[in-house]
Amino acid sequence: MCGIVGYTGPREAYPIIVKGLKRLEYRGYDSAGVALQNGGLHVYKKKGKVADLEDSIAGKNVHAHVGIGHTRWATHGEPNDRNAHPHQSASGRLAMIHNGIIENYAQLKSELVKKGYEFKSDTDTEVLLNFIEEILVKNDCSLEEAIRIALKRVVGAYVILLLDAENPDTIIAARKGSPLVIGVGKGEHFLGSDASPMLEYTKEVVYVNDYELAIIKPDELILKNLGNEKLTPYVQKLDLELASIEKGGYEHFMLKEIFEQPQTINDCLRGRLDAVAGTITMSGIQQYAEQIMQTNRIIMVACGTSWHAGLVAEYIFEELCRINVEVEYASEFRYRNPVINPGDVIIAISQSGETADTLVAIETAKEKGAIILGVVNVVGSSIARTSHGGAYTHAGPEIGVASTKAFTAQLSVLTMIALKVGYMKGTIPQQRYLRLLNELNELPEKAAWVLQQHEKIKAIAEKYKDARDFLYLGRGYNFAVALEGALKLKEISYIHAEGYPAAEMKHGPIALVDENLPVVFIATKDPYHEKVVSNMQEIRARKGQVISVITEGDEHSASLSLDVMIIPEADEIVAPILSVIPLQLLAYYIGVSKGLDVDKPRNLAKSVTVE
Amino acid sequence: MCGIVGYTGPREAYPIIVKGLKRLEYRGYDSAGVALQNGGLHVYKKKGKVADLEDSIAGKNVHAHVGIGHTRWATHGEPNDRNAHPHQSASGRLAMIHNGIIENYAQLKSELVKKGYEFKSDTDTEVLLNFIEEILVKNDCSLEEAIRIALKRVVGAYVILLLDAENPDTIIAARKGSPLVIGVGKGEHFLGSDASPMLEYTKEVVYVNDYELAIIKPDELILKNLGNEKLTPYVQKLDLELASIEKGGYEHFMLKEIFEQPQTINDCLRGRLDAVAGTITMSGIQQYAEQIMQTNRIIMVACGTSWHAGLVAEYIFEELCRINVEVEYASEFRYRNPVINPGDVIIAISQSGETADTLVAIETAKEKGAIILGVVNVVGSSIARTSHGGAYTHAGPEIGVASTKAFTAQLSVLTMIALKVGYMKGTIPQQRYLRLLNELNELPEKAAWVLQQHEKIKAIAEKYKDARDFLYLGRGYNFAVALEGALKLKEISYIHAEGYPAAEMKHGPIALVDENLPVVFIATKDPYHEKVVSNMQEIRARKGQVISVITEGDEHSASLSLDVMIIPEADEIVAPILSVIPLQLLAYYIGVSKGLDVDKPRNLAKSVTVE
Repeated sequence: MCGIVGYTGPREAYPIIVKGLKRLEYRGYDSAGVALQNGGLHVYKKKGKVADLEDSIAGKNVHAHVGIGHTRWATHGEPNDRNAHPHQSASGRLAMIHNGIIENYAQLKSELVKKGYEFKSDTDTEVLLNFIEEILVKNDCSLEEAIRIALKRVVGAYVILLLDAENPDTIIAARKGSPLVIGVGKGEHFLGSDASPMLEYTKEVVYVNDYELAIIKPDELILKNLGNEKLTPYVQKLDLELASIEKGGYEHFMLKEIFEQPQTINDCLRGRLDAVAGTITMSGIQQYAEQIMQTNRIIMVACGTSWHAGLVAEYIFEELCRINVEVEYASEFRYRNPVINPGDVIIAISQSGETADTLVAIETAKEKGAIILGVVNVVGSSIARTSHGGAYTHAGPEIGVASTKAFTAQLSVLTMIALKVGYMKGTIPQQRYLRLLNELNELPEKAAWVLQQHEKIKAIAEKYKDARDFLYLGRGYNFAVALEGALKLKEISYIHAEGYPAAEMKHGPIALVDENLPVVFIATKDPYHEKVVSNMQEIRARKGQVISVITEGDEHSASLSLDVMIIPEADEIVAPILSVIPLQLLAYYIGVSKGLDVDKPRNLAKSVTVE
Repeated sequence: MCGIVGYTGPREAYPIIVKGLKRLEYRGYDSAGVALQNGGLHVYKKKGKVADLEDSIAGKNVHAHVGIGHTRWATHGEPNDRNAHPHQSASGRLAMIHNGIIENYAQLKSELVKKGYEFKSDTDTEVLLNFIEEILVKNDCSLEEAIRIALKRVVGAYVILLLDAENPDTIIAARKGSPLVIGVGKGEHFLGSDASPMLEYTKEVVYVNDYELAIIKPDELILKNLGNEKLTPYVQKLDLELASIEKGGYEHFMLKEIFEQPQTINDCLRGRLDAVAGTITMSGIQQYAEQIMQTNRIIMVACGTSWHAGLVAEYIFEELCRINVEVEYASEFRYRNPVINPGDVIIAISQSGETADTLVAIETAKEKGAIILGVVNVVGSSIARTSHGGAYTHAGPEIGVASTKAFTAQLSVLTMIALKVGYMKGTIPQQRYLRLLNELNELPEKAAWVLQQHEKIKAIAEKYKDARDFLYLGRGYNFAVALEGALKLKEISYIHAEGYPAAEMKHGPIALVDENLPVVFIATKDPYHEKVVSNMQEIRARKGQVISVITEGDEHSASLSLDVMIIPEADEIVAPILSVIPLQLLAYYIGVSKGLDVDKPRNLAKSVTVE
């Protein structure tokens, strides 16, 4: 994780860097720091959020035209001033920021300690920096050359940016595994973990690839590989508006993004779904339609909330396409030795498109001959570029660390893919196909209907906000919604919430149930409804507090529940897109009522770009 | 769930029934009751355990030669005296006990209410009983006939036993979906949910099948189907010793069973594994060897702890046999519409062999042409009988509600199956095959070595027993061990423990981490070890309390942990069988130090025979 920003050009660097870091705080906010070139290197850093850094610098001279900045999500060493980036080399000549993990740092460190180096921090970053300086001094070479030599010894993932007191207008950057965007302006360059820090200055960007090194001056951008061969930078046009990354009157990004869902689901369907003509147009799927229809097996690879979307999609694809589907945690999939055959289809699901584990997992599978389809939100991201085909979710930038609108957009896209494939394959009866297209079409309106209950859900949140634990239970399509509802609450409120398939609670978790435990049932009308009602009875028999998400008009389930949140009638296949919304609101309002920073929950970061 | 006992013959019925109920308390202990024939029906029942029932009856006249008894795990209606079984019919003529769920009870109840029936309890059982009586009166038929007619209307699962004041020497029983054993003595019969209540009286038993009805008198056993055709009872010899269901000097069954593991693992390997000859003999697998070698796909179906065994086995089979493996929650698998093709191999894993969801899941898959292999502990159980082949785990009766020795035996059996199949298929190099046979052979000794740390683990338990929450993290083969460790603690101590693949914590659960949270890492030496160490660093950076299960001699991981539990070096494939043992002990000692009844944790029951 961690966010990085850099600037070199005629403007004042500090305000650009600080504003950029604030936009990148979704990537971590344990500590922040900047290094500025102004007749020598000046480094300022502070534990806490970027605002804390600003406070601590207030009144100091921050005049500079070249600088780098960092917002940290701690991996090695606890979050404090000392471990904050930038780090300076032993001689003080170099300053560096780093996003990633150096896995063999312990080995490198012990070599350096033997040579007499002392370390001011507990970080892997300071080790790498001094390792570079050691080579620089010993080989008496250029910094660029020293970095190249050092990186050949490094095991791990990184983006690094370096300033050198002896070359004050230059930033050197290198990447492997973590994202780096360079914005190209007139006589100036911007650097960022994503494009948000440079939005108001330029629309021309270069995405740096793995094993590439960049030497950046105000009017020159040199891109090389680690073999010291020059590469031609591929300049792309950025399609992102400033307004889309601002709060627009909402108290938090998370609330804004929850309320955007009628719009984002619509954006996701628009231009693809034609319910009247009975067609779904998705060119990134169409291209691979034959292969998908013929495959024996689809593997969904994802992490976190995206993994939950994969679980729902598993059921949808098996039902509509009659293809075996497996859902894998990307982190597990990449390290064990899974059976992958040429022709297997892998669907990689990721909001950011930069999730490190997912990215490596698909790279491995691609080598084994699998077809990779990306379901990604961020256009041009690493996963999108690595995939053969796929479909963007078009949910717009998601800033709140807890994913909401990206999840419902992922489900919308995955449902459309399954419908398209199933219809071509002939595994969906015509009538059901058309009905589901209509159901999809009605989702934006129904989502808006669900959102109208926000005041009621706020009241429910007030009632249960002091609970220490929550259970979330569902069956079938709603099983994954239970997991997702629990994850939202855990992230936002630090309440220990856990989701389970409803029938599994009897195999252990029911031991937690007493009169203090709220149990949230996702109990919308579907073929398993009566079974879920039996499970409700079992929880009531043990005095658990039953809260339910139910279908409009279901008086029986309502009578068994202390509190209910309602969704309109919907086919079970699309119901998760609606039934998750009240759970997002519940988590949000509980978090807010506990006085927590719901957009930046502790310890988390938005996109997990380390393992 | 629920346990049922019955007796008809020359002996005093009450002491037999009470002793039998105590042995069946693993099936539920919310309330208990008996009905005795002694010049009319006498019913006694009480909320709580069987001992509470005994106390409440003390001093009363319990003389009788015919009786039935029940220990309840509540489904409909909270546990109290009123909802305890046996229930009596409106007229008082009939008394009934029931294990299972009547799903359409609400419909039946409203019909009866219209006819003027009033209900004393909230149970589905009382509804069924009065429904039977209504038919009996209206049709003026025999009780047997009334039961047959009633059961044709019933949706759900059940074993029922009825006493009729007008036929005082007879018990009528019927079964669908829940287990029933009849013990055949000389001029007497015994009934039980399993054979344990009749162990000291007879070794001749009849397992009643679904849709069968039994009329039982002291010297006569009539078995019929629901079409009123007589069946010949199939009398089997029971192979179970009384000593094996007693505590043998340990404070709890759970502790006894944890300490039995060197022996039970050995029992499981014995006669199968010959490390010197390099052979594995398993006739129930050998029979289907061709089919398993040729299948594209193995599906593990299980619940709870057995599901965790399936997760470990997934990795083992994929690694050693290069066959795709999926692991399914039985409850989810049976209700959605999974893709099953003829030739698919299903491995059903269950300690009791009676797990309702697993049983129905394999019945469905069997109809679709799948080959069903059972990995089951209880010989002659429903899942064992429904499977085509498979292998028993031979762990002996497991009485503690939290499964321990059954889990390590399941892993031992599954590893042997994978080795056998992989070796025949040629997907395991000879050398690795022989090495793994040796590793298996060494497990009993290594397990004994791990158990020697019990005093140290007890001290660790004391230190962390007041924690409100725990996280358990592992990767690869140890990922499922993390889930299992968390489940044990949750079941036994009611502490909210949760397991995750280590890399997933960053996608949400890490928000729970603060200086009060113990995080248990299963960090034994394997190819992912360095990655797990990185995750430890991340938790330390957020001040979580790191406790680890590590391999002997791993000083680095030890230096990062506040407390460690050690296992000897072992191949990563067999390591879970060892690394789970310290976690079983940790859960046990925390439960005991909190003063809880670890053999009978609240709300739970050993085998989940309802959905």
